[in-house]
Amino acid sequence: MVATAKAVVCLSLWLIVCQVRGSYIPPKMNRTIHNLLQHYKIPPRERFDGKPVFSRDPLAGKMEAKRVLMGGVLETYEKLLGQMLKELPTPTPQTAGSNEIPAAAVTASGGEVGTGEDVRTELSYILNKVQELRKHRYQEQEKLLHELRALKHIQMDNLKVQSKALWELPRLYEEASSLYDIKMERRQRRRRQTRRVKTHPSA
Amino acid sequence: MVATAKAVVCLSLWLIVCQVRGSYIPPKMNRTIHNLLQHYKIPPRERFDGKPVFSRDPLAGKMEAKRVLMGGVLETYEKLLGQMLKELPTPTPQTAGSNEIPAAAVTASGGEVGTGEDVRTELSYILNKVQELRKHRYQEQEKLLHELRALKHIQMDNLKVQSKALWELPRLYEEASSLYDIKMERRQRRRRQTRRVKTHPSA
Repeated sequence: MVATAKAVVCLSLWLIVCQVRGSYIPPKMNRTIHNLLQHYKIPPRERFDGKPVFSRDPLAGKMEAKRVLMGGVLETYEKLLGQMLKELPTPTPQTAGSNEIPAAAVTASGGEVGTGEDVRTELSYILNKVQELRKHRYQEQEKLLHELRALKHIQMDNLKVQSKALWELPRLYEEASSLYDIKMERRQRRRRQTRRVKTHPSA
Repeated sequence: MVATAKAVVCLSLWLIVCQVRGSYIPPKMNRTIHNLLQHYKIPPRERFDGKPVFSRDPLAGKMEAKRVLMGGVLETYEKLLGQMLKELPTPTPQTAGSNEIPAAAVTASGGEVGTGEDVRTELSYILNKVQELRKHRYQEQEKLLHELRALKHIQMDNLKVQSKALWELPRLYEEASSLYDIKMERRQRRRRQTRRVKTHPSA
């Protein structure tokens, strides 16, 4: 009983904090996550065990690296929400012709703990929001993640692959070495540019 | 016979090209790869089938993305060379006490097709070169690759994980949205800075 009250207080507080700080999260999305958490309930001691699923600020300072990682995080959320949708019981046929869920189910229920179909609708809404963000703002990162994934499927124990990879090594080794040098040159150029701006300030 | 001659000509041409353009590849490394290709031999029609193991310039223009991918490529080479070393026959004990390979086996043989142990030494030398490049110039990317790998091990079908991930979503959604905006702001600032430098050129 105490644990449930604690969880409700935590959830409400978190909802308020999100609404205050977050112009990025639509209030409806916040409400929907809040509802879903009533369905996907775990004890507070499990939730706050100090082991988040996604680590907090793991790449401090490196913006592009952060963006690539965030692309991966959004992709993982898509898979996770897909899995959660798959795990829901299949809808039982109802009396009228109202047993079908519209394909673009994006409405979230008001504030009550959802039934099976409410949960489906709410999960679909959240999935849709994540997909939209990824599609519109993380397309650049998508290509890189795809290339990195492809590396995992290289057949290491195949003679043809081994031979071709050896053949390709000089090109890649050279590129890897020169990429680093380009980075250093750019840093130096930027520093020179900033120094020039400081030496000749606008009137 | 014709195919072998063709392969030798190709190899020699490639060796010359590498030596001309590439100040980044030590000549010894070039020679060693050349020797190894005599051991890891495949017909030219297989080598030049238009399907390289590592795609050519897949992320044109995006420097940081290229660097991350290159970190992944070097990591893959380490695994591949490790696998190739593992596949070599284990050395048979010899008469004198000379049957052990020194731990830091970095000498490459002259120009002949290597025996089993030559191949081991040569592979170890190449592996060492790849490891050195990764360690000294691609450490920043290593952390990101590690974080991306961790995403693959998230237990999608676990209620605790699902609930915690839902709880963490507002924070991550907000971060993902704001990261994109920071990128746009930086681009605009850089453009303004460049314009200012052009408007007030140094005397």
